[in-house]
Amino acid sequence: MSSRFDAIGFDADDTLWHTERLYVEVQTRFKALLAQYHSPDWIEARLYEAEMRNLPHFGYGIKAFALSLIETAVELTEGRVAGRDVQAIVDLAKGMLAAEVELLEHAAATVALLAEHYPLLLITKGDLRDQEQKIARSGLAEHFRQIEIVSDKSAPGYAALLRRHGIAPERFLMVGNSLRSDILPVLALGASAVYVPYALTWLHEAADPPPAGQPGFYELEHLGRLPALLDEIDRPA
Amino acid sequence: MSSRFDAIGFDADDTLWHTERLYVEVQTRFKALLAQYHSPDWIEARLYEAEMRNLPHFGYGIKAFALSLIETAVELTEGRVAGRDVQAIVDLAKGMLAAEVELLEHAAATVALLAEHYPLLLITKGDLRDQEQKIARSGLAEHFRQIEIVSDKSAPGYAALLRRHGIAPERFLMVGNSLRSDILPVLALGASAVYVPYALTWLHEAADPPPAGQPGFYELEHLGRLPALLDEIDRPA
Repeated sequence: MSSRFDAIGFDADDTLWHTERLYVEVQTRFKALLAQYHSPDWIEARLYEAEMRNLPHFGYGIKAFALSLIETAVELTEGRVAGRDVQAIVDLAKGMLAAEVELLEHAAATVALLAEHYPLLLITKGDLRDQEQKIARSGLAEHFRQIEIVSDKSAPGYAALLRRHGIAPERFLMVGNSLRSDILPVLALGASAVYVPYALTWLHEAADPPPAGQPGFYELEHLGRLPALLDEIDRPA
Repeated sequence: MSSRFDAIGFDADDTLWHTERLYVEVQTRFKALLAQYHSPDWIEARLYEAEMRNLPHFGYGIKAFALSLIETAVELTEGRVAGRDVQAIVDLAKGMLAAEVELLEHAAATVALLAEHYPLLLITKGDLRDQEQKIARSGLAEHFRQIEIVSDKSAPGYAALLRRHGIAPERFLMVGNSLRSDILPVLALGASAVYVPYALTWLHEAADPPPAGQPGFYELEHLGRLPALLDEIDRPA
């Protein structure tokens, strides 16, 4: 069967494996660490502010997150944070980097099945080494034609990537859980995108969904439904 | 003129632009920060130990360095490090990330000249976003056919990269300042390598030079000599 798509791209974090819950768990422990100083909501708001302020310097990923946690701890304790609490934060980051990769339900079967019919690309952002290690631990690497770890997911970034692989945007489909990073920039290029929401979304990745009836936009409850959706899109009219 | 080489790879940090001196400068300020606790030599030794211990977790780059500095500060003050000193360390890292890119002498002219005759690859390791920003600020990006930011520079890593670009190792030449990262793994594949030492070398990147007479190994005092070396290698015997 011929397909409308020459390649399918997959986001990784919270699309193929759980990630955001690690961040949420560490934030909970961070709020406990500072509980004598401030309310959980206030800590969360100031941390988010630090993350946004530091994004241009540090980019995405766990090391950037750790540095923002440390900065927030200094700020919210007016410099009285204990050395052992600073070390505890560094250790939380190491724990995140060493965490087991837990695949989402349907991820392994769907990726294995689709790899028989389409070239698959893995397109993810964050720390280079951390992402490489997670991809290796996931057991899914063999199904991907190419793995692309990028510093940001923007329309020009996707355009350059597709050009490099010789893929026309209208023959590309991206699958991911972030409207901001996986869906909207891809639709802007005239490519197709399948939004598979995850239970938790980092505020920074939140965005309004595309307008109703936007061509090329699909939403699925879970990855297990992706093969049937592709069959339907590719079915002769 | 036909060449022995189908592509030339360049390392970036301390090959095309100054980097190590930024690290040395920050270490000097770090030692001043902890001067009341320990001697400069002891601080330096413990910092290096922390960096090596953290390498498998954090990888290379400025954010990893910052986290190792913070860990060392906590350790060497037995937890008494002041919050403002922790923040000062985070600010040193931000200063490094924002630093101007200062090209090495001969780098701009040599790269521009060679780009007219060979496809050039930039192959560098470190933080993804930091390296991208330095490449953009360097003004040299346009001369490179492809930019590869990798998490480590090993023989298997180079082999995979060359395979991806369809370049036979014996038709590849790598230029760089690190024996460990730019020279030895490349020679191990049967490719050629030009070692251009930099005034400062991070202990971790130090290695013994290849044995005298090792085929494909060249050493130059500065990049300005590279075009003449290539002419000589490619001259019909």
